[in-house]
Amino acid sequence: MASSASPETPKPKIITGPGGYVLEDVPHLSDYIPDLPVYTNPLQDNPAYSVVKQYFVHVDDTVPQKVVVHKDSPRGVHFRRAGPRQKVYFHSDDVRACIVTCGGLCPGLNTVIREIVCGLYHMYGVKKVLGIDGGYRGFYAKNTVHLDPKVVNDIHKRGGTILGTSRGGHDTTKIVDSIYDRGINQVYIIGGDGTQRGASVIFEEVRRRGLKVSVVGIPKTIDNDVPVIDKSFGFDTAVEEAQRAINAAHVEAESFENGIGLVKLMGRYSGFIAMYATLASRDVDCCLIPESPFFLEGPGGLFEYIERRLKENGHMVLVIAEGAGQELLAEATTEKDASGNKLLQDVALWVSQRIKDHFSKERKMTINLKYIDPTYMIRAVPSNASDNVYCTLLAQSAVHGAMAGYTGYTSGLVNGRQTYIPFYRITEKQNKVVITDRMWARLLSSTNQPSFLHPKDIIEDKVDEEPATQLLDNGNCSPN
Amino acid sequence: MASSASPETPKPKIITGPGGYVLEDVPHLSDYIPDLPVYTNPLQDNPAYSVVKQYFVHVDDTVPQKVVVHKDSPRGVHFRRAGPRQKVYFHSDDVRACIVTCGGLCPGLNTVIREIVCGLYHMYGVKKVLGIDGGYRGFYAKNTVHLDPKVVNDIHKRGGTILGTSRGGHDTTKIVDSIYDRGINQVYIIGGDGTQRGASVIFEEVRRRGLKVSVVGIPKTIDNDVPVIDKSFGFDTAVEEAQRAINAAHVEAESFENGIGLVKLMGRYSGFIAMYATLASRDVDCCLIPESPFFLEGPGGLFEYIERRLKENGHMVLVIAEGAGQELLAEATTEKDASGNKLLQDVALWVSQRIKDHFSKERKMTINLKYIDPTYMIRAVPSNASDNVYCTLLAQSAVHGAMAGYTGYTSGLVNGRQTYIPFYRITEKQNKVVITDRMWARLLSSTNQPSFLHPKDIIEDKVDEEPATQLLDNGNCSPN
Amino acid sequence: MASSASPETPKPKIITGPGGYVLEDVPHLSDYIPDLPVYTNPLQDNPAYSVVKQYFVHVDDTVPQKVVVHKDSPRGVHFRRAGPRQKVYFHSDDVRACIVTCGGLCPGLNTVIREIVCGLYHMYGVKKVLGIDGGYRGFYAKNTVHLDPKVVNDIHKRGGTILGTSRGGHDTTKIVDSIYDRGINQVYIIGGDGTQRGASVIFEEVRRRGLKVSVVGIPKTIDNDVPVIDKSFGFDTAVEEAQRAINAAHVEAESFENGIGLVKLMGRYSGFIAMYATLASRDVDCCLIPESPFFLEGPGGLFEYIERRLKENGHMVLVIAEGAGQELLAEATTEKDASGNKLLQDVALWVSQRIKDHFSKERKMTINLKYIDPTYMIRAVPSNASDNVYCTLLAQSAVHGAMAGYTGYTSGLVNGRQTYIPFYRITEKQNKVVITDRMWARLLSSTNQPSFLHPKDIIEDKVDEEPATQLLDNGNCSPN
Amino acid sequence: MASSASPETPKPKIITGPGGYVLEDVPHLSDYIPDLPVYTNPLQDNPAYSVVKQYFVHVDDTVPQKVVVHKDSPRGVHFRRAGPRQKVYFHSDDVRACIVTCGGLCPGLNTVIREIVCGLYHMYGVKKVLGIDGGYRGFYAKNTVHLDPKVVNDIHKRGGTILGTSRGGHDTTKIVDSIYDRGINQVYIIGGDGTQRGASVIFEEVRRRGLKVSVVGIPKTIDNDVPVIDKSFGFDTAVEEAQRAINAAHVEAESFENGIGLVKLMGRYSGFIAMYATLASRDVDCCLIPESPFFLEGPGGLFEYIERRLKENGHMVLVIAEGAGQELLAEATTEKDASGNKLLQDVALWVSQRIKDHFSKERKMTINLKYIDPTYMIRAVPSNASDNVYCTLLAQSAVHGAMAGYTGYTSGLVNGRQTYIPFYRITEKQNKVVITDRMWARLLSSTNQPSFLHPKDIIEDKVDEEPATQLLDNGNCSPN
Repeated sequence: MASSASPETPKPKIITGPGGYVLEDVPHLSDYIPDLPVYTNPLQDNPAYSVVKQYFVHVDDTVPQKVVVHKDSPRGVHFRRAGPRQKVYFHSDDVRACIVTCGGLCPGLNTVIREIVCGLYHMYGVKKVLGIDGGYRGFYAKNTVHLDPKVVNDIHKRGGTILGTSRGGHDTTKIVDSIYDRGINQVYIIGGDGTQRGASVIFEEVRRRGLKVSVVGIPKTIDNDVPVIDKSFGFDTAVEEAQRAINAAHVEAESFENGIGLVKLMGRYSGFIAMYATLASRDVDCCLIPESPFFLEGPGGLFEYIERRLKENGHMVLVIAEGAGQELLAEATTEKDASGNKLLQDVALWVSQRIKDHFSKERKMTINLKYIDPTYMIRAVPSNASDNVYCTLLAQSAVHGAMAGYTGYTSGLVNGRQTYIPFYRITEKQNKVVITDRMWARLLSSTNQPSFLHPKDIIEDKVDEEPATQLLDNGNCSPN
Repeated sequence: MASSASPETPKPKIITGPGGYVLEDVPHLSDYIPDLPVYTNPLQDNPAYSVVKQYFVHVDDTVPQKVVVHKDSPRGVHFRRAGPRQKVYFHSDDVRACIVTCGGLCPGLNTVIREIVCGLYHMYGVKKVLGIDGGYRGFYAKNTVHLDPKVVNDIHKRGGTILGTSRGGHDTTKIVDSIYDRGINQVYIIGGDGTQRGASVIFEEVRRRGLKVSVVGIPKTIDNDVPVIDKSFGFDTAVEEAQRAINAAHVEAESFENGIGLVKLMGRYSGFIAMYATLASRDVDCCLIPESPFFLEGPGGLFEYIERRLKENGHMVLVIAEGAGQELLAEATTEKDASGNKLLQDVALWVSQRIKDHFSKERKMTINLKYIDPTYMIRAVPSNASDNVYCTLLAQSAVHGAMAGYTGYTSGLVNGRQTYIPFYRITEKQNKVVITDRMWARLLSSTNQPSFLHPKDIIEDKVDEEPATQLLDNGNCSPN
Repeated sequence: MASSASPETPKPKIITGPGGYVLEDVPHLSDYIPDLPVYTNPLQDNPAYSVVKQYFVHVDDTVPQKVVVHKDSPRGVHFRRAGPRQKVYFHSDDVRACIVTCGGLCPGLNTVIREIVCGLYHMYGVKKVLGIDGGYRGFYAKNTVHLDPKVVNDIHKRGGTILGTSRGGHDTTKIVDSIYDRGINQVYIIGGDGTQRGASVIFEEVRRRGLKVSVVGIPKTIDNDVPVIDKSFGFDTAVEEAQRAINAAHVEAESFENGIGLVKLMGRYSGFIAMYATLASRDVDCCLIPESPFFLEGPGGLFEYIERRLKENGHMVLVIAEGAGQELLAEATTEKDASGNKLLQDVALWVSQRIKDHFSKERKMTINLKYIDPTYMIRAVPSNASDNVYCTLLAQSAVHGAMAGYTGYTSGLVNGRQTYIPFYRITEKQNKVVITDRMWARLLSSTNQPSFLHPKDIIEDKVDEEPATQLLDNGNCSPN
Repeated sequence: MASSASPETPKPKIITGPGGYVLEDVPHLSDYIPDLPVYTNPLQDNPAYSVVKQYFVHVDDTVPQKVVVHKDSPRGVHFRRAGPRQKVYFHSDDVRACIVTCGGLCPGLNTVIREIVCGLYHMYGVKKVLGIDGGYRGFYAKNTVHLDPKVVNDIHKRGGTILGTSRGGHDTTKIVDSIYDRGINQVYIIGGDGTQRGASVIFEEVRRRGLKVSVVGIPKTIDNDVPVIDKSFGFDTAVEEAQRAINAAHVEAESFENGIGLVKLMGRYSGFIAMYATLASRDVDCCLIPESPFFLEGPGGLFEYIERRLKENGHMVLVIAEGAGQELLAEATTEKDASGNKLLQDVALWVSQRIKDHFSKERKMTINLKYIDPTYMIRAVPSNASDNVYCTLLAQSAVHGAMAGYTGYTSGLVNGRQTYIPFYRITEKQNKVVITDRMWARLLSSTNQPSFLHPKDIIEDKVDEEPATQLLDNGNCSPN
């Protein structure tokens, strides 16, 4: 195995076409292994697919990243469309796949696991699928779990991951050694941006060694902070579940004089859950997210706004994303947790305390603040029906790509279509709420909270304008 | 008001561009009323929007209908992007809007009502909004309801429609008379395909009379049978709620010898709810939808499949869309209900009876069939969080369009972007499950049910090939 | 084994005491088998119980049936208190227990199964427990299932019964033969009144044959129609789940002109679920139960009341127990289903049709009637938390009694205490809503529905006055 | 009004009878106001009650506190049975009632408010009902709210209290002045033990002044720590809702190596919620409550047990009642919050930290501890169906008693019957889990946790033996 491997880091595969068309393609095993045999896709003979016309994705199908266009816009970046190909690069009996889940919990993990196993088994007749136990470190430190359709049959009704997970624990050499030693040739890696970066270096090492191993990422992030893709699986479920906490905060706040309900939601660097939960609920008076700086004291500050709402309404509800207002914490440490995430101070607890102090000491007002942190209750629920369907398509797309010999890609939904996205596009930055965009304006309009911005900020902000992928309709034409 | 009205039916507004670009534009008040005054959009001075750059949608923004493309594909049909415009054609104080809901219940109706009212009020300062009571016939037969943000504040947490609804009752002349008499100049019509056809003729009559009245449709269909748009609001909630019935059917079936759980789901002409509920659940052994004919007796028929599943598993779950197998009911009547829908025989009850008869009389097998019809329990639930956000964007888009002087359009999500779609595209046909497409193949693969098709059928089917808009990733490149 | 068995039907064991004290005791193995060895209860050495004082129930502990008393009331009937005894009549290694579930589904069945298995295992060290498959007929027609704590660990989170169930199928001789042949000496029978009657004759046959076999009933009835006991397990869960259907009916009714939501709930002979669901919901305008006859036409009839409510409110919600108004169906058949239950006409469908006909034909009023039958969705849900605790205590009580050598009894909650009740008290009649009692008056007061009674009826009703056990506070002093 | 008031504290009204019968009766307005007029109960003419025989409670009806009896037991303490009386002491037009809610939130508060209002209105024709805003201090500091059936119609579907609540704020003289000034003659006070003590002194002051004012308590305690009564309203709902947090903790724990899920539940002095939630869930490995002391280090301690469970299972779930292990916190402060409750250290956070430190520092083991505090999410949910019915009966009982001239009592369920209990029995001590009783043994048996007791503790514990009222079946004969 291997020999013609190129040692240098692979370059992006860019293909251009008329009208400014650009395809950012994904690597393929045949890029670095010559003369690979190809096989007929066994789906051809699957009775369930016998009625399907044009079942196989056309080799030229691509999906544009930008769908708001002008009559004369350049066509821009496209990604390869996911789906089954006429020809596959693995014989089913030879496939030895493994699945690993990394990082924190997210609704839908078990559904993705289930559908990779069932997809390989039912669509391609692949019977050797291993579960790696407990995240990346399970590659070299643990036994594996045999997975088949019977084992995974009911797991989509449960939260968590049956494989176990962990943060960090990534040692590229040892992982690729383990892949090689176990004879694994398809690696499915489910995890967030750190995990996808890990997948990227595993892919590069595999390629360097010239191994016939497809390395496939499936983006998992409850915060929705993975770029390019429309939204991450589990996000809808998380926003739904967050409603419970907001409802409770609202009831508590309403029942006490000067009642303040404060809900902390997930979102280290991206405030999507907080923003969407606020928009869905309509009971929130203020939503604070990492992307939108705020301040506590003085005119236009949070304290002033709280006092005004209490005077008007007698109560209020605040939603704070866990990563909001980090710049306010003077004592910000630089500790990192095992995955390399900066250990964040608990801003919600800190803000709670500051609010209590401000009103009791400076304003001599009695307030009743109730603090709710539903984080682990949200992460642990099973995925809802729409996330179940989404996870199914994502997992099947991942499988089709690996069978077709693609590698070094993340499966992802782009403008409602399953695509294969090169790792570097997923890991180069984080998806963030664009606070100069319409969705955030909608939120401000719905809560009536101050923007906490000075005109100066706005102008400065215009400078480092950047394209953003966001949920649903919200991008502006030019950057997106 | 009025005079230059053109009596003939308006032609589609088609604009073309390079690379095969086609824009199917929507009518505008200025198409038939000359010299309309324009105003600065009041959003400009709204503090919530002060931080937003490029808040206003560019006048040339459009969204392609087709997003699976080749390097050299023609660019194809586009729709006008929804959103606020720099200039509006109504002075806020002059707007007198009305909202009407027609047809059956659907989760999210109250959220759409709420957000039209709040959008008009908070974004544009419009204070005169009427609710028409009880569907179309409320225009000429009933009192109206005053709507403001306080009245609609909590309605999104309740199912149903606070305005009441009804089927049919459409008398174009009387409705337009009523619009004129009440001084209404923005009409928001929420309803299914029949209702949208009604909206279309109201628009034509308004135009014929030369009235400065924007007529706006918001597509409501729990069956997801409206074409062009990605999916209809309430659909996710309906699929989620359907899981309860399927779970119950599964439990009942498992607990009895030869237990059969049979769940009837909505879907007169389109089997989307049944298909997605089946894919999300994984407990279903057979899903029957209107688009896929089936037969009961003989080899490859339903009875044979049921008997096989009972022998293998001891129990099974069937999901039947209400419009499935209509061709099987010899006694099919031609009655129509008040909305003009063909009154369907209850196929699920009929199939239940046929199954019972077959096994007791012909096979002498005791079976335990439990029939569950959760229809009204699904329709009546409040929308979930993701549908709430969706309804919010849909309603705000509708409002922005009317303020900008557009008329004769339906607001709709196309490839994840809010657009304005001309009525004729919405009403010309129904969105249906394409059974020769991959999503249906996925379903067949997940249930292992027979396709109930003969090779002959498949070939014939290829003839009347038609483009289809479907949920998520499932279209093939050429037709879609 | 056996010999001294008395052939005649056993007489009730009645013990009397001062102040009118009466104990209706349950049979004991030693009643008909002399010289049985006794053993020390192994709980004595269980570390979990080491801290418990007076853990064992005193041999004289009893619980009164009547708890509303006067200063000089006679003390009345008592039942033996359930719980562990100092001495047991089985050596743990010798026990061979079996569990069977019969009749329709009810939330909590799996919890009861789980707790019998775990109770026997963890409290008494009993390791041989069989599950009988598919109801009574499983005794002679099927294989059995081995049950241990691992097998049953998670079953309480699922609806239905893992053992399967069926109606009828009772052949006393064959069942007792099977018990004898398999060496079973503890039989736990979970089922409704028909099942308990079956348990009673099994006990009598076992006794006739002189077998050392404890026969224990656990009353299962979603209708709460088992007499003497406070309430049946699963009842709270069923009433809770019924709220969904009533809510949906309310939303549908409110959204249409002259909307009528009609919900059918369980209750063949006893209207408890309908009554409690109505009292809990507050959205119901009329509740019809088997115990309270009603009529449709004329003054004071249902049609008149519906018309009045529609005029006052524009909509209404009806709840109908499945056994209500049977006397109204002229075509009443006398068919029986396999369990011997009279096959009831579907009164709710019949009433729906009569209402539609009446208003369309005679009153020329358009009404919108929506019919919801949530029966199977209610039966199939897992039990809620309070039913889970209740099922645990019920199962543990059943186990303690069998180990202590009691037999021919049903475990049941009486005035909040677990007791052993002789079979004949459970099977002699059904628990029914007493419509001349306060709870029904509360319901009439809450719905404002007519009583459908003539003064004559009331007087006649007084004649056949009977004691009733009912849920919570509602009995009058003298009969209860 | 007033004059013949007796200045001394009223003595308990004890009535004795044969067989050791004791009735602990409640005060009556006629005890201290002579020659009060009596009226016929207007229920007599209520059509809803026309069918009821013996609707009125017999004047001699009482309910025993002890229902586990021996043949020759003395009859013991009884309470007066609640319910409507033939004669009432208020003319409906003269009644001016008020309702106040005090202390923390509890599911069902709004249902109780609703049913007092509707009970007074529909049963007795009372139309003047005031809501006191924001707890006791609302009597003298705030405006009141007019309450009628329309205002309270839907409030039972919402959590919290529409009246608002607060802790403390009790000034007897000012409150009674306010009662007198407003002409209030029925005071319904909903709250916990502190609140009931407040109600007691209000009653005494009212009596001292000789006012014709009925003072009625309704016990509200989510912790179930009110003695004598079977259980408090909202308790079932709270235990149900706690399952979510335990499930989440279980999923989190299972998914990580050495995962520990730690759930804090309510229970300052009484561990009922923790105990019942643990028994209902079956996923809990250790439950710590205030009544059962525990220790961390050394043999038999918590750390040792955790380490053993992690070795056996790889994960574990702990439930800690908020008041558990207070004696372990050396720094225990003596602060009191506004209601006089000792401000408890957050033991769950403290234990979390100690566990983390122990395993990381002393055992060099990596553990993954997730801490969940669902307190406010549990308190704020609406009551479930069974609590709704319970609240209805409780509220109606309270109303019947006040109308009948009783005062100075708490309405409460005793052995499944509604009764009137003198204040001093409610306030003299707290209901606690008896850890030498069977229910706690059941819990120990279900979790397999150590008892954390030394034999010495057990013996000492026997000394201060005390009778306990507990939920369902669990009392032993002699003390209870």
